[in-house]
Amino acid sequence: MIKPRTPPGVMELLPREQIAFQRMLDTIRETYESFGFLPVETPVFELSDVLLTKSGGETERQVYFVQSTGALEKKGEGLPELALRFDLTVPLARYVAEHEHALAFPFRRYQMQRVYRGERAQRGRFREFYQCDIDVIGKDVLNPRHDAEIPAVIHAVFERLAIGDFTIQFNHRKLLRGFFEGLGIVDERQDRVLRELDKLDKRGEAAVRETLTGDGFTLAGEVADKLLSFSRVRSAGHADALEKLAALGEGTTQFNEGRDALVATLEQLKAMGIPESRYAINLSIARGLDYYTGIVYETTLDAHPEIGSICSGGRYDNLASHYSKSRLPGVGISIGLTRLFWQLCEAGIIDVAASSVDVLVGLLSEDDFAEALALSQRLRGGGLKVETQMAPKKVARQFQYADRAGIRFVALRGEGERAAGTVTLKDLSSGEQQVVALDEATAWIDTRIKGEAS
Amino acid sequence: MIKPRTPPGVMELLPREQIAFQRMLDTIRETYESFGFLPVETPVFELSDVLLTKSGGETERQVYFVQSTGALEKKGEGLPELALRFDLTVPLARYVAEHEHALAFPFRRYQMQRVYRGERAQRGRFREFYQCDIDVIGKDVLNPRHDAEIPAVIHAVFERLAIGDFTIQFNHRKLLRGFFEGLGIVDERQDRVLRELDKLDKRGEAAVRETLTGDGFTLAGEVADKLLSFSRVRSAGHADALEKLAALGEGTTQFNEGRDALVATLEQLKAMGIPESRYAINLSIARGLDYYTGIVYETTLDAHPEIGSICSGGRYDNLASHYSKSRLPGVGISIGLTRLFWQLCEAGIIDVAASSVDVLVGLLSEDDFAEALALSQRLRGGGLKVETQMAPKKVARQFQYADRAGIRFVALRGEGERAAGTVTLKDLSSGEQQVVALDEATAWIDTRIKGEAS
Repeated sequence: MIKPRTPPGVMELLPREQIAFQRMLDTIRETYESFGFLPVETPVFELSDVLLTKSGGETERQVYFVQSTGALEKKGEGLPELALRFDLTVPLARYVAEHEHALAFPFRRYQMQRVYRGERAQRGRFREFYQCDIDVIGKDVLNPRHDAEIPAVIHAVFERLAIGDFTIQFNHRKLLRGFFEGLGIVDERQDRVLRELDKLDKRGEAAVRETLTGDGFTLAGEVADKLLSFSRVRSAGHADALEKLAALGEGTTQFNEGRDALVATLEQLKAMGIPESRYAINLSIARGLDYYTGIVYETTLDAHPEIGSICSGGRYDNLASHYSKSRLPGVGISIGLTRLFWQLCEAGIIDVAASSVDVLVGLLSEDDFAEALALSQRLRGGGLKVETQMAPKKVARQFQYADRAGIRFVALRGEGERAAGTVTLKDLSSGEQQVVALDEATAWIDTRIKGEAS
Repeated sequence: MIKPRTPPGVMELLPREQIAFQRMLDTIRETYESFGFLPVETPVFELSDVLLTKSGGETERQVYFVQSTGALEKKGEGLPELALRFDLTVPLARYVAEHEHALAFPFRRYQMQRVYRGERAQRGRFREFYQCDIDVIGKDVLNPRHDAEIPAVIHAVFERLAIGDFTIQFNHRKLLRGFFEGLGIVDERQDRVLRELDKLDKRGEAAVRETLTGDGFTLAGEVADKLLSFSRVRSAGHADALEKLAALGEGTTQFNEGRDALVATLEQLKAMGIPESRYAINLSIARGLDYYTGIVYETTLDAHPEIGSICSGGRYDNLASHYSKSRLPGVGISIGLTRLFWQLCEAGIIDVAASSVDVLVGLLSEDDFAEALALSQRLRGGGLKVETQMAPKKVARQFQYADRAGIRFVALRGEGERAAGTVTLKDLSSGEQQVVALDEATAWIDTRIKGEAS
């Protein structure tokens, strides 16, 4: 006998939790589709030489390799042939480059699959987790209006997920780099300063200022103060965001381009009817160093800043330089759903009460079995999710079972109901019980489900 | 530059194909849920010592092992810590045993995930493929009525998938073993004979008869003929199935139990309203040797017998003997969707024409952009999937784009429409074009989509 157990670092859910998780996946998918994104799925493993094109780094240290039994026995030199994907971006790059001539550009794809990273095992860190990504990929060029559509998608996702008030915050890498230029910070010093400013949340302003003016950077105190005060810019409302961007004044060409792009994004969000409480500029957002080149996004839950960004992304210049000579600029976001789900459970925000089953068709006597089957099929025909009780039990035990399983409705059809052409329905959530005509059973339940939902 | 390519033996789809595949997945899931099955997902990898409890065999030879970079460098002795799942049954056994005290029995679960096998690379054989499984697991006992519900699920799945007429065929291991007993074939000889009869389709009757009466088996010609004539029993219609089972007469206790169980299944399917053309008994079905102990199912497409069984399964005595002292009898089926999808495409049965996007909101002039955004949001609010054209183009080019992308409707709102409070809608599938009030746009499109669907 072997002790049944999962490997460390994975999140395996009980059915009721899985239902809640599945609902989130479905909501995200429906929202992505409502914005015209097309589904893509890629294999869990890629060829190692294809996956690991970039020179090593933290990510590559975390890669899982895959070997068949035969390959394992041969113990060949070099890397194993296959490796598990560690994100959905590299597979997207490979996919777009491989199928470039079969795709229409701008190519709008969503992908919601698990990715794998050999993280150090600790609470809330997962080695297997879902990413839910969208990207719009252009060929040669990509209209900046796509950048401004992305926050509208983020808005729709989190409105529908209904996990609390949230704010989509954005910044622009050109604004940042242009601002640095204006202060005489150029070339690779920009990256070093960016990396330092990215630590503001963790280290605080005083510590970062000390580093920036210290031996490593030797920035003048005045320059450091300007950097910090720039990083402090956050807007509250649409007009305030426009005012704060205007107040930045004129700068280098790059600076002005970034600022104008943010203004255009703000106006487009307004035209799409996104409530102004849901978006803001936040000039402290940097997000990585070498990947993003334009707008960058982060999304936070207003009541839970400790969770950090729940949906991030941005604009990049070239998706697939390792695989294709074509220039493929793009913009996209990612939701790390496994971690988010775990955090929402920890914060008590997710309700895992309801079952996916709508109705339990009960059974009081052997004589009723054929009718119970027919009733179940009738309710299924009406679009309901139905479990049939296979053996007769006392009515109280059947109600108890439904209640514990989170099944909201119980339907019973005994001799009396059959003679009268009726069915007894009970709504466990309200306690309401009623005898209704057989024809009306589906509608009776449906109305109550829809009432709940609205 | 590295050539972008997928590993051999995986099926990666273009978006339009992926949409067709996703629709099948959704249909299967909705059907499983309509019968009250609950979702389970397990990690792609299991601990090797947990996954590989059984003594080696063909399956174990095909296992993929997983190693982190660190573990790879250490080159330790013994098996790597992790291995990819090769089916959903072993993970189910581990799951049920691990979470036994948190689950309600009978436990009805569905699981639709990819599994991995290091198959020899050949056309139509996949190393990564979806399995879509349901199982009902009892604790100590499981009412045989669950066995009879499974074909009703199979029926609903393939009716909804609408890939052609099909027949769910079943047999019963007790009937088979009881019949062998009656012929004096007992113990491990039963398994050897079963294995031989399983080859009937491939080898033909004459060859199998020769083997059964040859040196290895030394069965009398008369006994071999009885086996072959038993294997030939197939029913056409409900009454015929009952008659053929009755005509088998009385046998050993086991034989009679198997026969009675099949009769009960037939009656239950009738009570559920399953059309009698959709199910049949087929006494040649054996399905594996050591796993199934009761009813066994196969499903075939009437017009495509060459595809073989598209949904198979059966009843087993004990799911998790390796992981738990509890006796966990169960019944289940599996659909190998990746291979099925591939076969349906090969046979020209699957239509990959339509996009998941319902409407392209076109753009004729820069002045219309804000209105195009607002219109897109309005249509999304009505539940439609909408792509917005981001840059103005000639109307003919926009129709052409929608047509090529498989998007059925185009919506346009220029200056004239804005002044009149209308929108111009075109249905590319019928050529119908109409100017309708803005308020009625969603309904206009919805009606046509629903008309198509019905």
